[in-house]
Amino acid sequence: MRLETMRYTERFGSVRINDVQKVIELDSGRKEDTPAGEIIGVKKIDDEVVRGIEHRMAIVIPTRDEKLKLFEGVISGVPHDCLIIVVSNSQINRVDRFKMEADTLAQFCHFSQREALILHQKDPVIAEALGQAGYSDLLGEDELIRDGKSEGMMVGWLMAKLAKKDYVGFIDADNYFPGAVWEYAKCYAAGFSMATSPYAMVRILWRYKPKISGGIYFKKWGRASEVTNKCLNSLISSKTGFESEIIKTGNAGEHAMSMRLAEILPYASDFAVEPYELVSIFEGFGGVLPTANQTAAKHGIEIFQIETRNPHLHEEKGVQHVREVLLPGLSAIYYSPICEPETKKMIKDELVVQRVLKTNEKPPKPHLCLLPKKVAIKKFIELMGEHLAAYSATGEAE
Amino acid sequence: MRLETMRYTERFGSVRINDVQKVIELDSGRKEDTPAGEIIGVKKIDDEVVRGIEHRMAIVIPTRDEKLKLFEGVISGVPHDCLIIVVSNSQINRVDRFKMEADTLAQFCHFSQREALILHQKDPVIAEALGQAGYSDLLGEDELIRDGKSEGMMVGWLMAKLAKKDYVGFIDADNYFPGAVWEYAKCYAAGFSMATSPYAMVRILWRYKPKISGGIYFKKWGRASEVTNKCLNSLISSKTGFESEIIKTGNAGEHAMSMRLAEILPYASDFAVEPYELVSIFEGFGGVLPTANQTAAKHGIEIFQIETRNPHLHEEKGVQHVREVLLPGLSAIYYSPICEPETKKMIKDELVVQRVLKTNEKPPKPHLCLLPKKVAIKKFIELMGEHLAAYSATGEAE
Repeated sequence: MRLETMRYTERFGSVRINDVQKVIELDSGRKEDTPAGEIIGVKKIDDEVVRGIEHRMAIVIPTRDEKLKLFEGVISGVPHDCLIIVVSNSQINRVDRFKMEADTLAQFCHFSQREALILHQKDPVIAEALGQAGYSDLLGEDELIRDGKSEGMMVGWLMAKLAKKDYVGFIDADNYFPGAVWEYAKCYAAGFSMATSPYAMVRILWRYKPKISGGIYFKKWGRASEVTNKCLNSLISSKTGFESEIIKTGNAGEHAMSMRLAEILPYASDFAVEPYELVSIFEGFGGVLPTANQTAAKHGIEIFQIETRNPHLHEEKGVQHVREVLLPGLSAIYYSPICEPETKKMIKDELVVQRVLKTNEKPPKPHLCLLPKKVAIKKFIELMGEHLAAYSATGEAE
Repeated sequence: MRLETMRYTERFGSVRINDVQKVIELDSGRKEDTPAGEIIGVKKIDDEVVRGIEHRMAIVIPTRDEKLKLFEGVISGVPHDCLIIVVSNSQINRVDRFKMEADTLAQFCHFSQREALILHQKDPVIAEALGQAGYSDLLGEDELIRDGKSEGMMVGWLMAKLAKKDYVGFIDADNYFPGAVWEYAKCYAAGFSMATSPYAMVRILWRYKPKISGGIYFKKWGRASEVTNKCLNSLISSKTGFESEIIKTGNAGEHAMSMRLAEILPYASDFAVEPYELVSIFEGFGGVLPTANQTAAKHGIEIFQIETRNPHLHEEKGVQHVREVLLPGLSAIYYSPICEPETKKMIKDELVVQRVLKTNEKPPKPHLCLLPKKVAIKKFIELMGEHLAAYSATGEAE
């Protein structure tokens, strides 16, 4: 893989936000062909380096009643060296779609000779372990894990931790192109290979997100993304005193974190999850509030934004309107203790323009999951350790 | 890459036609992870093997006034180790689209540190060399190379020969997904790695070819493909006495050949080119007519059909109706000396049903390009040798 090098980095306290780096070449060939002096501005990342990171990375695929054909395509695109972790919230009762997913995954793992984990979001064993470990924010009134993609993601990375992985990446199950899935994983690995801090995050910017209506139109920006990015940038600008456009991946569903970063971040529910990751990093390490974690602050938090070569073509659900995506994310920014009046006003104005709020109405408070403390993770790992094999896709112990 | 192994091979004289092999996993990981005993039915092809073949392979991209964004995406998906050869028949006069393509390619090559060739189909130097080498079938009345994708393909592989490549693969310039392009090249290399004969061909079967009208429908078979395959299978069945369904890639635009096979095949113009490759192989090596080439017959001709994981999503031209695609291909079968009355009738009936022909009308004769003889190729190479550097995308001599 060949990428643009880091050309510009914006610093916000101990957070280093790298400007977008485009993928230049999907497959940059053999190691021996690496030129001694690469052109300034371009970075070739050798296969061995990428695979080394993939080997230490889990790809979490949250899914809920997704078309099996799409699910099957997505898992086939995940590079072999990554551990696949499927967190499914699909129906079990009327039609056991979870079983279909498990069967599909098991068949794929059998033929590709790889391991994978699959679990249901309503698994009582995991819920109990979470409860005992103090993650009660993840649980609903029925003592099971709440619905929601972000809860699934959270369980996903905890399972990745259990499987002793150092990185965790998220990829949606509704992608039409296995080749795009493959590229996401490669971008994650490429990003981590460039990181100088063990606290790193890679966020994907799609080159295009084609809209289908009659023909195909290669749209670059969605309305929700534009607004979310603007508000996040306002949050930074107001603190640094320099207007910034650095954040271009505020809503990036496709993103990855080093485990050490995942361990110290609180989570938000719903569509707030992706923007809130940034908000919580700014809160904890932007230098405005007390530092959330001294070790991490010392290393710095590194954020990479990588633009893929493949467009992003996925299942159009038709129900996720701009408003549904927009509100939770903007609320998470709005209620941040570092959000100053100017950005608050921008958020309210945008929500009024988008007809999500009435004038003088305030956004609803987002649901946040407590900061998981190291001790809690340890407890979860301890409780779940003996059960890991039960979640193997092939039914074989690791 | 992991593929299904060859499960079934149909033999027709010295031609070995392998049944479709599906791609199971796009990226099968590190070499050290290759299990000692792979499951029967699955073949892992190591990266080193794939890259070794890519290094000896040229990817020919015929293009004509294609959107530059698509062209740029396609070249970015071709694995680095392959030599890109662009054969453009784009306009030069009003707007110099050829120059735009050359600039795009040069920029890409600069940043990715690779070599590529680009030439215009109406290049007088190449036309003259072709004429002197005896390839007059490729030339029009103006002494320049005729229009048409198949003529461009032919010039493309001759340039690949000039660049001393052992394999040549064709990929269209209108593909929406760089990741799919990448997979085609990998499939070509995987196919050749399985070949036991130096005379080998790899033809791509798309997993789906989505149709866009309102939403997306994942179509498996196009009408033209279905009919062409049926007629080609009839051709085989009538000779072997066993009804066959082996051919599933009769119209495969995405395909590749070993140079030794490309050198001994005649070519047809227009949409006849892909089905006619099979027809001419059956004529020359099916054992019905005198053998076309003793050495090749001794080794056997091997045909692989590989089904991709990625769907094929490309620019809908709207003008290439089923009829336009169907007629040239079926004509090439119809006029083959090995085509018996039953298949001839099937072809005529199909063309009447598709309203391409009236009852009792005969299909028009296809335009075939003479079998290029070894001596002619040598002559072309000799004449063009000193000019190769002139076609370098970066303007640097090899």
